[in-house]
Amino acid sequence: MNSRRCAACKQLRRRCPSDCIFLPYFPPNNPQRFSFVHRIYGASNVGKLLQQVQEHQRADVADSLYYEAYCRIKSPVYGCVGIITILHQEIDRLERELVKVQAEISLVKGQTQIEGQLAQGQQVQLSSSSFHLPTTTPWF
Amino acid sequence: MNSRRCAACKQLRRRCPSDCIFLPYFPPNNPQRFSFVHRIYGASNVGKLLQQVQEHQRADVADSLYYEAYCRIKSPVYGCVGIITILHQEIDRLERELVKVQAEISLVKGQTQIEGQLAQGQQVQLSSSSFHLPTTTPWF
Repeated sequence: MNSRRCAACKQLRRRCPSDCIFLPYFPPNNPQRFSFVHRIYGASNVGKLLQQVQEHQRADVADSLYYEAYCRIKSPVYGCVGIITILHQEIDRLERELVKVQAEISLVKGQTQIEGQLAQGQQVQLSSSSFHLPTTTPWF
Repeated sequence: MNSRRCAACKQLRRRCPSDCIFLPYFPPNNPQRFSFVHRIYGASNVGKLLQQVQEHQRADVADSLYYEAYCRIKSPVYGCVGIITILHQEIDRLERELVKVQAEISLVKGQTQIEGQLAQGQQVQLSSSSFHLPTTTPWF
């Protein structure tokens, strides 16, 4: 055992080989990160999940497993599926809000158009009455 | 071994006790459901996660574990964290869209107000000119 062991090998009390699958993603200075995934998936399953993807993808696998494990420990019943439910509810709320505001804008635009038409009609009426005014006034 | 064994006990080739923790949530007619959680978490960890909550919460635990396992098998790098990322992006898009539409509605309302004030001003001017018309006409 030496100080260079990763968090996984430290917790599993075993020597940490130079090609240890956990070493790059579970550093010894963050023991909680491995502890969480170990509690939920077990070390062997985490190792398998890291092995089955390409090397450049492993950091993302470790991050996403840690996030899911963290959520499951904080919320033992729903885990991160609870977050997905909340986000879906937020999307529904925003979509309803958007439909409401779009309906409002259509209404305001419709009212503006009607008011514009009315104002135009009033102007035509006014200009036609001022055109006829000289011919109907008694001084002609 | 008998036909009443749950999917977990069938796959693990063991007898299924009447108080089996998996029996109510992993029925024998849906072997894939247990197979998925077994691949990702391992049977022992699934059992522990079911044991640590109250009985009425276990169906939700089994459902959410199955969903997370399904996502991990379909998307080995991001699992259901990929879905959370997509949902966050969708919320950002909807929030931007809402801000844009709300700005548009403010603009339309502002224009309507200005047009209304202009129309009112025009009416005042027109009515005042018709009021003054008799006093400025040459026949007085």
